[in-house]
Amino acid sequence: MSAIDDLATELAKLPGIGRKTALRLTYHLLKQPPEQSKRLATVLAELSDRVHRCSVCFNLTEADPCGICRDGRRDRTVICVVEEASDIGAIERAGEFRGVYHVLGGRLSPLDGVGPDDLTIRQLTERIQSDEIREVIVATNPSLEGEATALFVQRQVAPLGAAVTRIARGIPIGGDLEYADGVTIAQALSARRAM
Amino acid sequence: MSAIDDLATELAKLPGIGRKTALRLTYHLLKQPPEQSKRLATVLAELSDRVHRCSVCFNLTEADPCGICRDGRRDRTVICVVEEASDIGAIERAGEFRGVYHVLGGRLSPLDGVGPDDLTIRQLTERIQSDEIREVIVATNPSLEGEATALFVQRQVAPLGAAVTRIARGIPIGGDLEYADGVTIAQALSARRAM
Repeated sequence: MSAIDDLATELAKLPGIGRKTALRLTYHLLKQPPEQSKRLATVLAELSDRVHRCSVCFNLTEADPCGICRDGRRDRTVICVVEEASDIGAIERAGEFRGVYHVLGGRLSPLDGVGPDDLTIRQLTERIQSDEIREVIVATNPSLEGEATALFVQRQVAPLGAAVTRIARGIPIGGDLEYADGVTIAQALSARRAM
Repeated sequence: MSAIDDLATELAKLPGIGRKTALRLTYHLLKQPPEQSKRLATVLAELSDRVHRCSVCFNLTEADPCGICRDGRRDRTVICVVEEASDIGAIERAGEFRGVYHVLGGRLSPLDGVGPDDLTIRQLTERIQSDEIREVIVATNPSLEGEATALFVQRQVAPLGAAVTRIARGIPIGGDLEYADGVTIAQALSARRAM
């Protein structure tokens, strides 16, 4: 195998990058100054050494606990439950939520062999039992598996006394009724509110 | 900057990869075993050390001269002129061409400040003068700049005695007349051959 093939093979393992794109990226890097591929190599090599899971909320972090769990201004009585650490970034960018998080590490998916023990659901119930939690907001994705996971979390958490809520599903802002799917429109109608 | 941001920033410098895709790739790597990002880092770091330009044809290679220039079964009297080393792979995969190559390293583009001296046109004329060359096939892309480059190469090479030919332009195999642009159809018509 040549160095070009080696790199293209590794790049093609990434999601959304096929063999042709991998080769194009490789040739692109060969046209750039060597420093660019060297720097990319360095940050890649450091990634898994520097980034770990927060021992409280399972967010990806370089410090433990993570910045959000350590932040004294956050409301520790409200936990927002998400599937992946990347979802925290999306919610934080919205700038609305001032509570803390809990990363499940995926969603229930019997077909892929992902059961409750593969997620951090037990650790979530332990947090709720040891800390004073007012509300658990379940923010798994509104997909079939995300809804099933939300329902499972709700059944585990509700007996512990905290209120369990689910993020609203409906037509996205800037979205178009004409292009929305039937399930979303049905949700938007049934969750209608007085104006 | 965090390790996640560092990597996303470097990945976003690659062509066709925006900020969101870069973050998605980073989170993907964090879900894989650390070995995957380590291996990618290793081949990236080695890339610019292992790969160089062939001193004869300017192909990207780990040995000098490159495998094609060293191959005794290739016809050294026919040179196929291409813009980039990546074009050689495309032509080799077709399995038709048995001559050797010359990589220009780009195409003439006055708007981008790329003139004849930025390409390996002088080295091409030197090759033709020192070796016995029967034919020079100009295989630059059939774009505006590729055609201008082809014309320039033809004018430099023709006085040296070698035949200068241009790859055919027309409707691609499996292509559809209905979706072909007018210039391509005009080319396909004017270059028609007796059946």
